[in-house]
Amino acid sequence: MSKEIKKIALLTGGGDCPGLNAVISAVTKSAILNYGYEVIGYKFGYRGLYNNDFIQLDMTTVSGLISRGGTILYSSNKDNLFDYAVEEEGKVIKRDVSDVAVENLRKEGVDVLIVIGGDGTLTSARDFSRKGVKVIGVPKTIDNDLGSTDITFGFNTSIAIATEALDRLHTTAESHHRIMILEVMGRNAGFIALESGIAGSADVILLPEIPYDINKIVEKIEDRKKHGKLFTIIVVAEGAKPKDGEVSVAKIVADSPDPIRLGGIGNKLANDLEKIVKEREVRCTVLGHIQRGGTTGTFDRILSTRYGVAAVDLINRGKFGSMVCLKGKEITYDSLENVIGNNKQVDPNGELVSVAKKIGISFAD
Amino acid sequence: MSKEIKKIALLTGGGDCPGLNAVISAVTKSAILNYGYEVIGYKFGYRGLYNNDFIQLDMTTVSGLISRGGTILYSSNKDNLFDYAVEEEGKVIKRDVSDVAVENLRKEGVDVLIVIGGDGTLTSARDFSRKGVKVIGVPKTIDNDLGSTDITFGFNTSIAIATEALDRLHTTAESHHRIMILEVMGRNAGFIALESGIAGSADVILLPEIPYDINKIVEKIEDRKKHGKLFTIIVVAEGAKPKDGEVSVAKIVADSPDPIRLGGIGNKLANDLEKIVKEREVRCTVLGHIQRGGTTGTFDRILSTRYGVAAVDLINRGKFGSMVCLKGKEITYDSLENVIGNNKQVDPNGELVSVAKKIGISFAD
Amino acid sequence: MSKEIKKIALLTGGGDCPGLNAVISAVTKSAILNYGYEVIGYKFGYRGLYNNDFIQLDMTTVSGLISRGGTILYSSNKDNLFDYAVEEEGKVIKRDVSDVAVENLRKEGVDVLIVIGGDGTLTSARDFSRKGVKVIGVPKTIDNDLGSTDITFGFNTSIAIATEALDRLHTTAESHHRIMILEVMGRNAGFIALESGIAGSADVILLPEIPYDINKIVEKIEDRKKHGKLFTIIVVAEGAKPKDGEVSVAKIVADSPDPIRLGGIGNKLANDLEKIVKEREVRCTVLGHIQRGGTTGTFDRILSTRYGVAAVDLINRGKFGSMVCLKGKEITYDSLENVIGNNKQVDPNGELVSVAKKIGISFAD
Amino acid sequence: MSKEIKKIALLTGGGDCPGLNAVISAVTKSAILNYGYEVIGYKFGYRGLYNNDFIQLDMTTVSGLISRGGTILYSSNKDNLFDYAVEEEGKVIKRDVSDVAVENLRKEGVDVLIVIGGDGTLTSARDFSRKGVKVIGVPKTIDNDLGSTDITFGFNTSIAIATEALDRLHTTAESHHRIMILEVMGRNAGFIALESGIAGSADVILLPEIPYDINKIVEKIEDRKKHGKLFTIIVVAEGAKPKDGEVSVAKIVADSPDPIRLGGIGNKLANDLEKIVKEREVRCTVLGHIQRGGTTGTFDRILSTRYGVAAVDLINRGKFGSMVCLKGKEITYDSLENVIGNNKQVDPNGELVSVAKKIGISFAD
Repeated sequence: MSKEIKKIALLTGGGDCPGLNAVISAVTKSAILNYGYEVIGYKFGYRGLYNNDFIQLDMTTVSGLISRGGTILYSSNKDNLFDYAVEEEGKVIKRDVSDVAVENLRKEGVDVLIVIGGDGTLTSARDFSRKGVKVIGVPKTIDNDLGSTDITFGFNTSIAIATEALDRLHTTAESHHRIMILEVMGRNAGFIALESGIAGSADVILLPEIPYDINKIVEKIEDRKKHGKLFTIIVVAEGAKPKDGEVSVAKIVADSPDPIRLGGIGNKLANDLEKIVKEREVRCTVLGHIQRGGTTGTFDRILSTRYGVAAVDLINRGKFGSMVCLKGKEITYDSLENVIGNNKQVDPNGELVSVAKKIGISFAD
Repeated sequence: MSKEIKKIALLTGGGDCPGLNAVISAVTKSAILNYGYEVIGYKFGYRGLYNNDFIQLDMTTVSGLISRGGTILYSSNKDNLFDYAVEEEGKVIKRDVSDVAVENLRKEGVDVLIVIGGDGTLTSARDFSRKGVKVIGVPKTIDNDLGSTDITFGFNTSIAIATEALDRLHTTAESHHRIMILEVMGRNAGFIALESGIAGSADVILLPEIPYDINKIVEKIEDRKKHGKLFTIIVVAEGAKPKDGEVSVAKIVADSPDPIRLGGIGNKLANDLEKIVKEREVRCTVLGHIQRGGTTGTFDRILSTRYGVAAVDLINRGKFGSMVCLKGKEITYDSLENVIGNNKQVDPNGELVSVAKKIGISFAD
Repeated sequence: MSKEIKKIALLTGGGDCPGLNAVISAVTKSAILNYGYEVIGYKFGYRGLYNNDFIQLDMTTVSGLISRGGTILYSSNKDNLFDYAVEEEGKVIKRDVSDVAVENLRKEGVDVLIVIGGDGTLTSARDFSRKGVKVIGVPKTIDNDLGSTDITFGFNTSIAIATEALDRLHTTAESHHRIMILEVMGRNAGFIALESGIAGSADVILLPEIPYDINKIVEKIEDRKKHGKLFTIIVVAEGAKPKDGEVSVAKIVADSPDPIRLGGIGNKLANDLEKIVKEREVRCTVLGHIQRGGTTGTFDRILSTRYGVAAVDLINRGKFGSMVCLKGKEITYDSLENVIGNNKQVDPNGELVSVAKKIGISFAD
Repeated sequence: MSKEIKKIALLTGGGDCPGLNAVISAVTKSAILNYGYEVIGYKFGYRGLYNNDFIQLDMTTVSGLISRGGTILYSSNKDNLFDYAVEEEGKVIKRDVSDVAVENLRKEGVDVLIVIGGDGTLTSARDFSRKGVKVIGVPKTIDNDLGSTDITFGFNTSIAIATEALDRLHTTAESHHRIMILEVMGRNAGFIALESGIAGSADVILLPEIPYDINKIVEKIEDRKKHGKLFTIIVVAEGAKPKDGEVSVAKIVADSPDPIRLGGIGNKLANDLEKIVKEREVRCTVLGHIQRGGTTGTFDRILSTRYGVAAVDLINRGKFGSMVCLKGKEITYDSLENVIGNNKQVDPNGELVSVAKKIGISFAD
């Protein structure tokens, strides 16, 4: 079926995520060793596709790459070629430049494009597929909120980093009788907070999916005090919200341009708690970019390798317009049309929330 | 159904495994907080059950326990109460003393026994179940070879340790142009070697399930040399075997009392390779007990917690004689009768071996 | 000389610091095994001394303690018994209650008090020494800014954590062409920023001791760009200051009660740089309490053990009113009178700053 | 004085050691940025100098190198150009080929040679210095036994790895009541065993410098049992010896070609102890090459950088024939003539052995 495939291209889009290089390595090795495909990599995500800026990928390029964080192809965060900022007559205007990309692929003789990215990057991948480009997607997000797949690479490394941070905060909280808050990533989905909270022995976990009541947090603090525990550890996803309405970041930090950087829900909560629980110091740490870079963990190295190999196999099988997935322990695939628009969230009634509650963790609901 | 359950007991058997304490913690918390069960823990595995040697487990006992390696209940390796060494009239003879155990449970008012262990420990659990004791099993083995469950706790921590060791050996192999062998655990099943080998960028992986041809290893070394790679990393499971027959440990080490400690397949292979590949130094490291102790990894803390909570839920649901399992992403259970005798092995034609081969890893078959 | 010493007491004061428990362990073991002293530990620092709140310390209490973060004696941050907040007739007023402490020591039969703490805690230790109490000090501060000693325990673990964070930020900075700022501790002294900056391959290091010129940072960024490096890593000590005057935290964050938590110099710098270097995203991570808790590193375990043993030896030798020190590779001591008021800072003309400059790191001076 | 220096060369010799790349990086950056020297690196140690096999080193070559284990210049273990194996008329004979090396340096216009290595490599460096070559040495050995310097790079990373291994063995020893032996490197000097033993809470430390009495080890095991400690951790340096004479490795392992790999003192001790302490299982792990590779620790990154910068400064100051050293906290230098033949050993009456004894660690002496 795919006899004519001779050359494939790769690109990586969106934020950093441990495992990107491992996917690049697996795709390149598998394509060359098993099918004899030529492999190139566009630099800076879709921008490189637009500018025809690419490098050749071979066995030497990807040697020793499986464990390295980042992406040797670089990435760009918000470049959407279907609505791309170009300069015309001195003004920056938005244009659909996707035809330029399609033409670049044609000129270079690229038969298939493998796109490694999250929701935004894969939406463009679907749109290119609709235009007739042969596309294969590989799911990437440390938040683990992409649809159709049980798990995305990067997530496991991320929760390991967050758990280690919680282990460190634990000793200080216990010795100094503090209330310690750790804010982790997760704007729309609280998987990182939930899993690192369980593994790191948090007392309270706050998720975007379960609006919290601050009084319930105070109850938990008081209840622990009664049992001789003079400290409390709280993990909060950046997208968590109090029950009584939206968080006004403006109320926390007057003129911050970046809600991740200044303010944010962790700091709001610290402020709010300090007013109520007067005898305890409250400290908030925002884990930030530390949780998305660095050496890739074992689990994610294996998962990324499986995804990379599976992506090349899908090419061989002619399954274009689809994304590789993990379902249970099986690697499989789903169409990009199904993936986009079907992001996952933590199920407030699911097993893992239930497990957390059963060992005494409060969600302040 | 289980209205009458008031008191449960726990024991841990077999070798060390990261996550034992996390299961103990989850069982205790979940049993007390959700069902009001009293919880005791027998010390030293079945020996404690025979000697009626136990401790009370409560919220304080298990505080801060989720990350700690080892087991606060201690363990014993080979105590089988159905064939137990007792001293009678100055001689040590083997007896079935299981009735003593059953009587101890009755006297203490223990309604259900949760047994955390591997194949041997769970075989006894099944046998107690056959005698009418209400038993729940929790699967434990770093080898990941127990039947009915996709994964056992401890395995992930173990492959992370082995992968880190491979990362370290890599720099030396590359700088000094060595052939480096790492021997990891796995007598009958090569899951640790396979997964750490992929994650740690091994060039050759040798498994019990795929007898190896030393000439194929030499071919791989030569092939790498042609591509400018003057070093080779080999991961070998302790149970790996050459195609041409059994390994005569006696031939390697004259009078060693312990094949794990002296000799072993890794050292045999090093000897054999040095005779053939004369221009390279060959070094073997036996990872040994380092891969089964210490701080429990994030993945295993979560899995152990899920297993512990599920075990208590099974009690509440009256599902005695069964073992908690993970199937895909779901926690479920199977009967101990099905579990015992159905150990898993790596499938030589399965996805993961295929993935490894596709990225160029040799199994020397 | 010290024939009459029979009982000694320990207390820990100030913020958390990896190695506190290792000192407690070494003092206890050494005092009991070598001199037969009885050992007690006051809880919550000086507050416990005031309230006569203590525990017995023996070989069992300190078993397995060397690696554990935090302090089993707990700590308090700002309790100064020479100016202590007490309630009298419904009002909180400050009183000198040090006589109560002296009387408590007398009543319990405590011959010598070992005080483990930083500048504030040791100032009180000196004051108790002036009142005639036999005191030995042990230097503790992750900032490494105490006088008379080359190094304090906790510092090495702290820079290891900061370096690991820099390693993680590096991959993201490089892949995404970002300017990444890491704010580390150090209000008055920049040792953590300096050493983690060198180890973590920072391009710019900003210290309290060397006021910075933002234009020099921009020059560095531009210079790197010319050499094909589209990213820059900046480590900034929390006490770093721009040349043109004090940082007005108020300008950054309107109503934040805690300059560590909201705002701070790292975020100010991010704001300032984003206005100048428009084509790059700037991200700031504040490492916070993660850098002062958790498992103690190897170096600090050994140093803390040496300090603990030396403190007990000083008792035996009757060298009261002094603090244990490390000078070069020798453990020695200095009088608390000399220590207090002689805090260290990074020498802007010293070897380590010079080393950093010679490998191309900018201090923006 | 050194106005004429225009080009310098680097080589790395001997076994792997974390920090080699960090020295290469610091030398290269400092030489280029501060003095405008051209820098080349000979590959495979002295062999590359003989074969005139080198690469150019510039800012790009060494970018991102500080943390990477191994050496980008590769190394060779036993190549001594003053007694070098060459093939003449079909036979391998040993010749002094140092003149070839001197001529190669002259032809390439290399003014100074920086040699990074241990005892053997630096002995040759001294010999080249005697022949009139301008040489600077940088001390490298994970064993930390080189004279004239307080500490060598690599040592700290090595004891951190050994300590982590001890932490892991601890949980298993405690849970399973085992006697656990860890054999670490150190043929002539026991620094690794001593420092990792203190940091990793060993109960017994065996050093080459303090011959051991096995009865004293048994006494320690019995004494611990009396205090309720049913496990014992022993760290043994590979060069440790029993009091009653040399270890006959031949007695342990009949025909092993490599005493590190098979047999060794750790395994001998395990055999011996099992015969005496019959009720306990004894397990030995040989840490091997894991302790000398992989990511370089924070301390060694800084020390290596200081050494590299200092080596270049010595060139500028014309201090040829010398080696950079650390004395206390100062970087200084000594002549290679003084360094060679003055290897260090652990002082059996020194502070660190005394500290270990005072906290209850036995040396079985």
